[in-house]
Amino acid sequence: MLTSVPFGLRKIEDYSQVVGEQLISELKKKAETLKGLKVLNISSTAFGGGVAELLYTTAPLMVNLGLDVKWQVINGYEDFFTITKNIHNGLQGMDFVLTEQMIKMYEERNKSFAENLEDEADIIIVHDPQPMAMSSFIIPKKRKKAKWIWRAHVDLSSPQQEVVDYVSKFIPYYDAVIVTLPKYSEPFKNINKPYFIAPTIDPLSIKNKDLSKSATEEIIDRLEIDKNRPIMCQVSRFDPWKDPFGVIDTYRLVKKEIKDLQLLMVASMAVDDPEGWHYFEKTARYAGVDPSINFFSNVTGVGNVEVNAIQRASDVVIQKSKREGFGLVVSEAMWKFKPVVGTKVGGITLQIKDSENGFLIETTEEAAKKVKFLIENKEKAKEMGKKAHIYVKDNFLTPRLLNDWLDIFTELSEVTG
Amino acid sequence: MLTSVPFGLRKIEDYSQVVGEQLISELKKKAETLKGLKVLNISSTAFGGGVAELLYTTAPLMVNLGLDVKWQVINGYEDFFTITKNIHNGLQGMDFVLTEQMIKMYEERNKSFAENLEDEADIIIVHDPQPMAMSSFIIPKKRKKAKWIWRAHVDLSSPQQEVVDYVSKFIPYYDAVIVTLPKYSEPFKNINKPYFIAPTIDPLSIKNKDLSKSATEEIIDRLEIDKNRPIMCQVSRFDPWKDPFGVIDTYRLVKKEIKDLQLLMVASMAVDDPEGWHYFEKTARYAGVDPSINFFSNVTGVGNVEVNAIQRASDVVIQKSKREGFGLVVSEAMWKFKPVVGTKVGGITLQIKDSENGFLIETTEEAAKKVKFLIENKEKAKEMGKKAHIYVKDNFLTPRLLNDWLDIFTELSEVTG
Repeated sequence: MLTSVPFGLRKIEDYSQVVGEQLISELKKKAETLKGLKVLNISSTAFGGGVAELLYTTAPLMVNLGLDVKWQVINGYEDFFTITKNIHNGLQGMDFVLTEQMIKMYEERNKSFAENLEDEADIIIVHDPQPMAMSSFIIPKKRKKAKWIWRAHVDLSSPQQEVVDYVSKFIPYYDAVIVTLPKYSEPFKNINKPYFIAPTIDPLSIKNKDLSKSATEEIIDRLEIDKNRPIMCQVSRFDPWKDPFGVIDTYRLVKKEIKDLQLLMVASMAVDDPEGWHYFEKTARYAGVDPSINFFSNVTGVGNVEVNAIQRASDVVIQKSKREGFGLVVSEAMWKFKPVVGTKVGGITLQIKDSENGFLIETTEEAAKKVKFLIENKEKAKEMGKKAHIYVKDNFLTPRLLNDWLDIFTELSEVTG
Repeated sequence: MLTSVPFGLRKIEDYSQVVGEQLISELKKKAETLKGLKVLNISSTAFGGGVAELLYTTAPLMVNLGLDVKWQVINGYEDFFTITKNIHNGLQGMDFVLTEQMIKMYEERNKSFAENLEDEADIIIVHDPQPMAMSSFIIPKKRKKAKWIWRAHVDLSSPQQEVVDYVSKFIPYYDAVIVTLPKYSEPFKNINKPYFIAPTIDPLSIKNKDLSKSATEEIIDRLEIDKNRPIMCQVSRFDPWKDPFGVIDTYRLVKKEIKDLQLLMVASMAVDDPEGWHYFEKTARYAGVDPSINFFSNVTGVGNVEVNAIQRASDVVIQKSKREGFGLVVSEAMWKFKPVVGTKVGGITLQIKDSENGFLIETTEEAAKKVKFLIENKEKAKEMGKKAHIYVKDNFLTPRLLNDWLDIFTELSEVTG
């Protein structure tokens, strides 16, 4: 019921070239008292989505810092994940009624995850709602030993209150709760002392690493994108939360005035996500026959290095999400010196400082106006892009997140000691 | 390099309810002298496509008849399959130049299949061009023991002659060559005595088995198809050979007069076929926003039983292929009492008797005319559908194919004896 995920090796020293040696020394120093600390991450999937991306970076780096970190994923089966997707949607504010039957399955499955939890750990980090209930089914003896942390990555700014109330039931079984923004903890009445931590991007991953202009152009050529015409892109899965229709509408508005505009929509598709396929079809049909709109995804062979090149080759990056827990993809584009036009929701507001390093928008018309502005004012766009890069460098790179984790681990260990 | 495919169990007796006991007794009698005959099938894939479908039915039935049948697939890797897909396309008449480099890889890979062939067999059946060259690399000692059969399932009615000439090189290494139609052997100058055998459909498979009207309607409802409005469908992968754009054009022509017409496009998608995904996207975009066009595929959970129901619920089934080796899907629909509107190409002409049990058409305009006719003349459609069912029953059901195979095995074994 729980499967270990192998996550390779990474060296913390490699990051000093990006964030400087001082922060890396501090991390090493903090980690000294935590050597051998057993940390177990539990999440719902090893593929796709921000949580998996974060763990593939932080888990091996913590190991490199001397901690004993593991990562396991739950095997929930399709019916279970349909329920947890609904819980996720409910937490993000979509209409949804949690039935007795769903609760029963959700809890039964979580009970068996708990029963199958074999590893001893000092710290157990449970990511998102899917495995959240399992801590409540751990026998007291096991509970005492480990400190349990719930890390919610979702946008909790305007949830369905009934779903929050249900989920709150499990909060008392955690020693710490981490959310991305202060307001995300407000709907919960029983979190004593929430931690507010924003996720970060990995500047050394294939998706974010430097890419030369010539390599970028070669990849863009190979994807048959015209590098001499203006490009706007959104990198997001096909999902109502990401508003792909709104992206196409924005493009169409701008296209009225900038005739040679191209729109690139890039997604990672999960084979086992029928809803994703369905929404991809809907989006493709909404795009219709228009050679200036191009879709790219892993199933047609577009991977991380291509995403890297597409973001770099874009004149404007848009993120038209309706909700966004954080929105790693915004920082990814900003890191590549791109001013992002993003909706004023959730974690996007943490990254974009309106009119400084990008634009926060609310409507499609506003989005179109800002996209047009950035394409027509290259110097201004460049200036904002530079600020975007610096803002990410100062706030949203992996070492900062590691620092936060080490602080929390230290605090929780002290309570034990 | 060769992987065995497990194919379960089937009982030949079960087929007597469909084709009568006499044919089944004859099959058993013919099989008596062939008991223990070692037959090895080699094909390129265990998933998707007609060849795999045929083998999942015939292999276990031959085992049930006392033969020792195995099925192995080659592991060719992506680059190899890109070449063989081109060879396949060239054999069906698409422009394509076979380079020295492609020939080198094709033959080297086939050489290693040959070297990895461990099983002893009396008869080796090689399906389609992908593993065709391997027989030429078998050491003479091994060659003597087994009789080699090449079974070509492609439409060879108007191939690229250079590709045929290249492929002909391997014909001398086969003891028998089987094609679907007499004219498919004409482009080859060195086949001594070709066999002409049409494939068949399995009336007891989940895709073809009887389905009650209520079960059909329940499935149609669940797929959110309106059973009270006229339905036309094509069941085919998204591929230029299947002309999905032409299907949409046909629908649009008919829709001008039959306003409530629905089009259902059903496909099986292979995860490892980027071209298929690309063509799906193109087709979806060509369809555009039209709630009366519905796409269904395995990735959104539509499987064999749904295909069965969709074919049964359709008023007209269309098959607008540009080439078609045989076109099992035509017989599948005919078996379900549907008159099929199909292009006058390849194996479709073997199944549809124009204006009797369906319509053979050449242009989109003709297709639209016939689709309209069948929707507006329900009695006539019903009468043609009955004839279609009977024609398939008499010609294209599994036991007939088994009979043909047993005859060939007997003939080849006698030559040995």
